Amino acid sequence: MSAYRFAVNVLPKDGILDPQGRAVEGSLGHLGVNGVSRVRVGRRVELTVDATDATDARTTVERLAGELFSNPLIESFAIERLDAHAVAAR
Amino acid sequence: MSAYRFAVNVLPKDGILDPQGRAVEGSLGHLGVNGVSRVRVGRRVELTVDATDATDARTTVERLAGELFSNPLIESFAIERLDAHAVAAR
Repeated sequence: MSAYRFAVNVLPKDGILDPQGRAVEGSLGHLGVNGVSRVRVGRRVELTVDATDATDARTTVERLAGELFSNPLIESFAIERLDAHAVAAR
Repeated sequence: MSAYRFAVNVLPKDGILDPQGRAVEGSLGHLGVNGVSRVRVGRRVELTVDATDATDARTTVERLAGELFSNPLIESFAIERLDAHAVAAR
């Protein structure tokens, strides 16, 4: 077993209302910031998975991303591998 | 002016309580998932900045990341450039 570290980025799908993104855009004027647009606000989840290989580990992450970290009706997710090499299990 | 796309990843600092991460870990048993640990839950903000060059654009993103997207007392942030090349302004 080795330990693999991943990140899952969850964002509202295009066309889905993003009230947090609109709130950020509405705050920019108060900060005196110009030229910022297309703000989207989502979640980032980082996790470690113990698995026999990277493929098994990614399968677990994909399942969690779709069932626990995101709502597939309104959000999309992207998975990043954070460690270039597997870390030996402690 | 060119348009630059960035992402800001905001996560609780090490040692700071992460109740969402603990909630995820508490849900794993119900899903029948084993071997997942060190879950951290944060935010991801994606945005477009119009600026004269990439350095100016990044300065704006760093200011927003520290003042608007994160609470520096309890959260850290990392900035990613999403577009390899600047997109010509419309």
